[in-house]
Amino acid sequence: MSTTGKQIFTTLEADGTLTVEVAESTFPDPKPTQVLVRMEAAPINPSDLALLFGPADLENAQYSPGKIVAKMPEPFASGAKGRHGQRLPVGNEGAGTVIAAGDSEMAQALVGQRVACVPGNAFSQYAIAEAAMCLPLGDVSCEDGASAFVNPMTALGFAETARMEGQKAIVHLAAASNLGQMLNKICQEDGLELINIVRKQEQVDLLKGIGAKYVVNSSDDDFMHQLRSAIDETDAFFGFDPIGGGTMVDTVFKAMEQVAVSKMTDYNRYGSNQQKKMYIYGRLDLGPTILTPSYGFGFTLSGWLLTPFLANAGMETMVRMRKRVLDNLTTTFASSYKAKVSLEEMLTKEAATDYRAMHTGEKYLVTP
Amino acid sequence: MSTTGKQIFTTLEADGTLTVEVAESTFPDPKPTQVLVRMEAAPINPSDLALLFGPADLENAQYSPGKIVAKMPEPFASGAKGRHGQRLPVGNEGAGTVIAAGDSEMAQALVGQRVACVPGNAFSQYAIAEAAMCLPLGDVSCEDGASAFVNPMTALGFAETARMEGQKAIVHLAAASNLGQMLNKICQEDGLELINIVRKQEQVDLLKGIGAKYVVNSSDDDFMHQLRSAIDETDAFFGFDPIGGGTMVDTVFKAMEQVAVSKMTDYNRYGSNQQKKMYIYGRLDLGPTILTPSYGFGFTLSGWLLTPFLANAGMETMVRMRKRVLDNLTTTFASSYKAKVSLEEMLTKEAATDYRAMHTGEKYLVTP
Repeated sequence: MSTTGKQIFTTLEADGTLTVEVAESTFPDPKPTQVLVRMEAAPINPSDLALLFGPADLENAQYSPGKIVAKMPEPFASGAKGRHGQRLPVGNEGAGTVIAAGDSEMAQALVGQRVACVPGNAFSQYAIAEAAMCLPLGDVSCEDGASAFVNPMTALGFAETARMEGQKAIVHLAAASNLGQMLNKICQEDGLELINIVRKQEQVDLLKGIGAKYVVNSSDDDFMHQLRSAIDETDAFFGFDPIGGGTMVDTVFKAMEQVAVSKMTDYNRYGSNQQKKMYIYGRLDLGPTILTPSYGFGFTLSGWLLTPFLANAGMETMVRMRKRVLDNLTTTFASSYKAKVSLEEMLTKEAATDYRAMHTGEKYLVTP
Repeated sequence: MSTTGKQIFTTLEADGTLTVEVAESTFPDPKPTQVLVRMEAAPINPSDLALLFGPADLENAQYSPGKIVAKMPEPFASGAKGRHGQRLPVGNEGAGTVIAAGDSEMAQALVGQRVACVPGNAFSQYAIAEAAMCLPLGDVSCEDGASAFVNPMTALGFAETARMEGQKAIVHLAAASNLGQMLNKICQEDGLELINIVRKQEQVDLLKGIGAKYVVNSSDDDFMHQLRSAIDETDAFFGFDPIGGGTMVDTVFKAMEQVAVSKMTDYNRYGSNQQKKMYIYGRLDLGPTILTPSYGFGFTLSGWLLTPFLANAGMETMVRMRKRVLDNLTTTFASSYKAKVSLEEMLTKEAATDYRAMHTGEKYLVTP
């Protein structure tokens, strides 16, 4: 007996036509290790937006109830060749109630419970999810538990990565985001220093308000001076960037190198021996990353993604991280939302252009 | 009793005036662990050129016997603030005869011998060198031994790095250089696959002539196809680049990702899980490195330098590498030179503009 319900799909044709629509879908019975979840809340994360719309032209798109047809510009249309013609589900994470389960003990134990899950089609009335990845929410509501995975595990993953690499301080860009606020709380709890880089005074105030010690504003005239001072005080030669494109990573490397060089006594043609490392974990800016030859050869730029990180970290670390998230879901790992939308409301011009802008602190929650 | 002789110095003033000149210099008596070497041959490596001239305007410089006065353009003049006003010696490596030694047994044992050394002022008639870093040349001439350090140890360092990181194949850019030719011989001896990227047919022919299996020409219309095929056959997701600026590293990452994606069955918005790693070890192009968001988050770009590599690798590895160089100095690790110049000839317009162009296979040897 299969279940039917509404779900959002995104389809990119080879000619660049992107169709995002709400459609009826049939959900199979769960396999032994799976559960069927009636979805009640799902956040729209930047990583969902990349798949949902990418850089498609939403301003000049055609809108009809439950449907958007937009044009994907080049080179992105050709670049996403791997998805041409495929009708893809969307929505990394969400929360809901388990209404059916496969035969395994682990899956059966979840029946009737509220869980956070990562089904990959969370923008849907129903979803099949792996029982092993479900987090039983206990007393926590679905709305409070909807963002229990991506942001909390990513922010904790940064702290874990820092410790694994012997670092005691982190630089974080676009630091006033939900994730950035969590990272501040984690670093305060764990005794890690954190340099927050933001671009507005109100973001400085927000982060100072939750106890951030180092917040530097890239719009200030003395930004580089502020940044160098903070690096000098914390020895932060390691950081995370969700922007990707542009010159901000380059700017951070320069500031790190300038601090390192200021501590050298002799001139070295190769720059300092200080190793400097930045991870790009998002693509808020889809332009190219520009790296100038201004900081010698002691630099590393790498991508960072949650799934491969968890695979490398191992089950024990992951279980420990998940327990910490569950224990602190309404405090350290609480998310806030600007608006709640249904599946249909999610595809109106007003909503789509607003949440696609990804303004700091203006996340949407989908309640299917 | 100190020794006097001629030596080349490079001085950059804060206003961007660069003076490179031959001057009389006095060399102190060697300390216990040091030797005094009468220099007979020293190669002009790209790493020397960065300090000697950098991107100074040699075309419109003033030339007088044994002296060049040139203008350093911005942002390089300000960027090299650390050296403003300092009269710096030049010349990483060379070979000569030990004419005096400090009191230590190791230093004394070298008296009267021809040695390769890394004094940092090899463009000089005399140089003080650490005895521990000297390589006794035995029957090998100073000209054959002059390049025994930088290129051989760097090429061996690439193979060592590949093995340390579990890689069985290497991509190498600007691969027809002296160093690139050595790397071909090393990889053949060690059973590592090597993809050589060059930009001229004559460089393809040169490398094929020394047994290279994979040589791809970036000037060919089907370059990307050639590169993908070679990566597909070798599983080379790891490489070294001496160019630095521009888009070639980006191009290699793209080709690696396209090969990895072609082996995937499902579309993944984040690209492949294949880790791709490139090291920049030189700056033949001083422009910015451009990285496009075309290969997911499974990439790492890092700087590579010989000195920190050797420090990390440890004494045992270094001794093994040096023995291999010495045993094969006229075969695997042989260097060839386009021209020989004296210290004064090195500072003529004709010579300086020629060797500063760093054309593949056109290295100069200084015979002080």
